[in-house]
Amino acid sequence: MVTIDIVPAISTCIKALRLAGVPLENAQIQTDLLVEAELRGRASHGLQRLPRIIQRIANGVADPETTGVAQWKGTALLEVDGCHGLGPVVAFSALKQISARARETGVATATVSNCNHIGMLALYAQRIAEQGQILIAMTTSEALVHPWGGRKALIGTNPIAIGVPALPTPFVLDMATSLVSMGQIHDYANRDQPLQPGWALDIHGEPTLDAKAARDGAIAPFGDAKGYALGLAIEVLVAGLTGSALGTDVKGTLDNHQPCNKGDVFIVLQPAHNAAQAISAYLDAIRQCEPTRADRPVLVPGDRAEVVRRNSLANGVRLPVDIWKQIQAYAGEK
Amino acid sequence: MVTIDIVPAISTCIKALRLAGVPLENAQIQTDLLVEAELRGRASHGLQRLPRIIQRIANGVADPETTGVAQWKGTALLEVDGCHGLGPVVAFSALKQISARARETGVATATVSNCNHIGMLALYAQRIAEQGQILIAMTTSEALVHPWGGRKALIGTNPIAIGVPALPTPFVLDMATSLVSMGQIHDYANRDQPLQPGWALDIHGEPTLDAKAARDGAIAPFGDAKGYALGLAIEVLVAGLTGSALGTDVKGTLDNHQPCNKGDVFIVLQPAHNAAQAISAYLDAIRQCEPTRADRPVLVPGDRAEVVRRNSLANGVRLPVDIWKQIQAYAGEK
Repeated sequence: MVTIDIVPAISTCIKALRLAGVPLENAQIQTDLLVEAELRGRASHGLQRLPRIIQRIANGVADPETTGVAQWKGTALLEVDGCHGLGPVVAFSALKQISARARETGVATATVSNCNHIGMLALYAQRIAEQGQILIAMTTSEALVHPWGGRKALIGTNPIAIGVPALPTPFVLDMATSLVSMGQIHDYANRDQPLQPGWALDIHGEPTLDAKAARDGAIAPFGDAKGYALGLAIEVLVAGLTGSALGTDVKGTLDNHQPCNKGDVFIVLQPAHNAAQAISAYLDAIRQCEPTRADRPVLVPGDRAEVVRRNSLANGVRLPVDIWKQIQAYAGEK
Repeated sequence: MVTIDIVPAISTCIKALRLAGVPLENAQIQTDLLVEAELRGRASHGLQRLPRIIQRIANGVADPETTGVAQWKGTALLEVDGCHGLGPVVAFSALKQISARARETGVATATVSNCNHIGMLALYAQRIAEQGQILIAMTTSEALVHPWGGRKALIGTNPIAIGVPALPTPFVLDMATSLVSMGQIHDYANRDQPLQPGWALDIHGEPTLDAKAARDGAIAPFGDAKGYALGLAIEVLVAGLTGSALGTDVKGTLDNHQPCNKGDVFIVLQPAHNAAQAISAYLDAIRQCEPTRADRPVLVPGDRAEVVRRNSLANGVRLPVDIWKQIQAYAGEK
């Protein structure tokens, strides 16, 4: 592992994307999302994704320039064909339009198809909530999760994010509906560490603690039957709105050469009241709840990420050496 | 327990509500919701709630007539003051308005405050999905759930429902964000049955298997930290939009005398494509997934409720004798 200060990390990423043919503004948007994930300790959505993005541009399955083609299907519903654009470039362009529209209409939705991986949802939720609006974001992914009681991976890790204005920082939920991420499974495999019971099945649908075997199998939904039901609901809701692929037909967020055919849905809501003060007081009451274990204070979603982020800003982020070398090579720095 | 055929159950409930001063149409709407919950085996949202509704009308905290006062805060956002009306009466009135609006705008939202318990969310999701639209419904409740790692009940059971068009019947998710319901805890207490580990804390915040002790304590969120985060997100999202009370300030869905100050949010989305066929094929593939246990086929949300419903329609529903006698007395039948 190597520790990188955040400012040079940003400039190297932007350089690498520029050399891959990405216009400056788009390179900044894509870098911002990867760096913010890295800062919060979400390595699976961080800088390690940059080489894949650059390879996808080279292979013609990611268009570095487009913000997609957007069409209003009603005053408050924006249908976006991502035209294989970079995920955050298309997503932020859509969000800008529906955020402005929601100020007039009270709510507006963007349905996005044919767009590359949009990365960590938390950042979208935070940005919208910082400007006084509420965001619900849902997206689908390759089928990695087994149905509750089933042996095969048939459902995406289908994350949901919810951002709500609060003070001093917004409330931000961002979670996958899988129990663990496939990134974690790969980490355990790389370190030859056994998984915890219930995390994963092998390729035959049998429970396994062997992380290497789990890579070809399926990961569990979080929260047993209920988490499975929620992940499945997101899969069909997103497909119902975007026309995206379903289940094992979804491709293109984990490989370098297939067009990305998952879907993304954003709903921006304009609160008629300002409840930020009341919500902040409530969240503080949650934090002050007497903990079950004295050494583990109760946390609110986002609290841990905020601590990690502050530490990363001060001390840099830690990356696998080979990933960083690859990024530097793409940036022409080595 | 007593077994009641569904047709006399419906007419007795309507009579009881009529005698309590509820106009016929409202009595039908309220009865429909209670009966549908009972038919699906969701007793906690079924006919046992009727005596409380009638007592709340008598106590002046439920208005039997109003559908609330609705005001458009933008083309697509309907703000509804429930004016202490009956939950499903206010909710269906709001849904009718935003469903019609979403056909033009693509999406429309209703934020509802000051309305009585709206009951089982599945029915709203089903009705909207049957007419070709998508519904996301969220509502809050009295604080019964402890934060993950905390000792006190500070969060509602905050259910979410999602309805998506599919064939022959819509996909309907309807789940509380608690691991179990307080209704289940009471059932276990009544039957002197021990709880399962991890379900609940006692009044001191200590884990307990004693259902009687759990009634004054807190129930766990489903899905550990993630389910906690989702329930909390629903609490603050609903409050952010409706101005509803938060946490332990929420009253009126479990008692007979306090005004109901939780909030309800409905989002209706108009799909630009017809994906019902593709979604149905996908759901069938999920059902056909090889199960972990040969005797337990994989289910899709709603499957079990549908089986129970068919059985209830054929054979009647089973109710505690004293509840049924109470309802009959309110209907002037005994």
